[in-house]
Amino acid sequence: MRALYLDKALTLREDYPTPTPPPGEALVRVRLAGVCNTDLELARGYMSFRGVPGHEFVGVVEECESAPEWVGERVVGEINAACGQCETCRAGRPTHCPHRTTLGMDGRDGAFAEYLCLPLVNLHVAPGSVPNEVAVFAELLAAACEITEAVHVHPTDRVVVLGDGKLGLLCAQVLQLTGCDLLVIGRHEESLGILARRGIRILLDPKGPRDSSGLFDVVVEATGTPEGFTTARQLVRPRGTMVLKSTYHGAVDANLTMAVVDEVTLVGSRCGPFKPALRLMEQQLVEVTSLIQARYPLSDGLAAVERASQRGTLKVLIEP
Amino acid sequence: MRALYLDKALTLREDYPTPTPPPGEALVRVRLAGVCNTDLELARGYMSFRGVPGHEFVGVVEECESAPEWVGERVVGEINAACGQCETCRAGRPTHCPHRTTLGMDGRDGAFAEYLCLPLVNLHVAPGSVPNEVAVFAELLAAACEITEAVHVHPTDRVVVLGDGKLGLLCAQVLQLTGCDLLVIGRHEESLGILARRGIRILLDPKGPRDSSGLFDVVVEATGTPEGFTTARQLVRPRGTMVLKSTYHGAVDANLTMAVVDEVTLVGSRCGPFKPALRLMEQQLVEVTSLIQARYPLSDGLAAVERASQRGTLKVLIEP
Repeated sequence: MRALYLDKALTLREDYPTPTPPPGEALVRVRLAGVCNTDLELARGYMSFRGVPGHEFVGVVEECESAPEWVGERVVGEINAACGQCETCRAGRPTHCPHRTTLGMDGRDGAFAEYLCLPLVNLHVAPGSVPNEVAVFAELLAAACEITEAVHVHPTDRVVVLGDGKLGLLCAQVLQLTGCDLLVIGRHEESLGILARRGIRILLDPKGPRDSSGLFDVVVEATGTPEGFTTARQLVRPRGTMVLKSTYHGAVDANLTMAVVDEVTLVGSRCGPFKPALRLMEQQLVEVTSLIQARYPLSDGLAAVERASQRGTLKVLIEP
Repeated sequence: MRALYLDKALTLREDYPTPTPPPGEALVRVRLAGVCNTDLELARGYMSFRGVPGHEFVGVVEECESAPEWVGERVVGEINAACGQCETCRAGRPTHCPHRTTLGMDGRDGAFAEYLCLPLVNLHVAPGSVPNEVAVFAELLAAACEITEAVHVHPTDRVVVLGDGKLGLLCAQVLQLTGCDLLVIGRHEESLGILARRGIRILLDPKGPRDSSGLFDVVVEATGTPEGFTTARQLVRPRGTMVLKSTYHGAVDANLTMAVVDEVTLVGSRCGPFKPALRLMEQQLVEVTSLIQARYPLSDGLAAVERASQRGTLKVLIEP
């Protein structure tokens, strides 16, 4: 099958072997895949991944020996494949299974290909009213929902989202639904415009956020850069909460004394729950299609990844 | 001025004295007032109130000696007027001030009149884009927001709202925004239809909810009846949360052993935060006008209250 393959550099392969699903897994024909910043980080060496990248997708189950009723279902999928046996899994934290593989990221080929395999327990049927162009955002929207899953954001809270990338825009939309007093700080007028049109208060690239120092009950750091952390700690109030969403290749120079002195709570946040994300899509409570900026066939997959890496680009989709 | 007056029975008065605002208070000309179930309970003897009922309103500030910049502002208002001096107030719980008066309910004339007085600190300017017919729901929507203010409702939670009255319908709309798995159980096809059109799952008057026993992480009891409590406790899971929204005249026969054995948390919930409610209205994330069923001039105020007391009636508005 056709696939993008990463081995230090990313190449297009026409003869990559089509996977055979092991017991308990389904073979999914990919309809649409999304390029995520993490894919770009992988290409820069993050996690030393070798294989087919891509973890945002919508597809159709084409083969599933253990549960043939799944064949033909249009699905999205959780990306962490857990062992289900270890202490972490049995404690109800499968996304942290130390033996897990992760779609297109760690030990498991991903969605920039004609086919992928995932365990059945990872799959969710896409609601009929949600088109592929929306469903492909399920993984990203789930990651945004993880904020309100992990942190009690009160309707009366002052909340700021740092970053107007794809994840930042979805985090903002999910947080808006709490009724909180929300501000989004970003660097791209066009991206922020998507939020402004939904009634969300925005601030374009402030030179210094010092005027707002310590103003916010909750700060969501979604800039995707190490610098975001410094801004975030300036904005959070004593005893406030910082939600860290950025993953990047390399270390951040963080003085954590403020976590002690100002008693700030740091919450790391990664993958989130799919079912709420699908409900929000089905009930049209979030808007994702305005984030789509380009669509490439898989045969032009290298150009798609190149385009996604340009500054200020929102979602680039790949169609096998 | 014209006013409805309660003294065991409700009467229309044409010569009721127009109030004079004490220092720190504003005189508000009422534009629109809403009849709440609590008003009906008051007429039945709840809280032994004597005076002008009505606590849901939107109006225009007509007089305010201590802050003349408020004159002409279109406002909604929080109903609890606290002393601001006592230990409870200083602890940040003014809505529980033991010396408080409550608009149209306790020691303070209310909104079923041409004018009312409220402390400035209780007033919120209605956003320009929110018409009177929407703004008049601010108090009710704030009460719905108090659920997510007090309880961390997770996007992955299974939540059920009991009751499809005005408060139940707004609680459901606010809870839907969390992305949770939501069900609303009610008795009125038309009222439930408002929610169904918004994509919320509904269930009409189930004979017995036993099939769903212990299924829900959060149960919101908003039936307005003592019987709702029994249903609520059947539906909540061990270690789940019951949010009690109903207030009524009289006692409920409750066996609270389950709170001990099943370690269920009971959360009483009354007035809520106005600012989030106004944000949700301004951003059009909730829909309230479909709840309006009738509108009466104040001169027909008695007919308005009579109409509101008919079974299945949603919001009745009074226009002075």
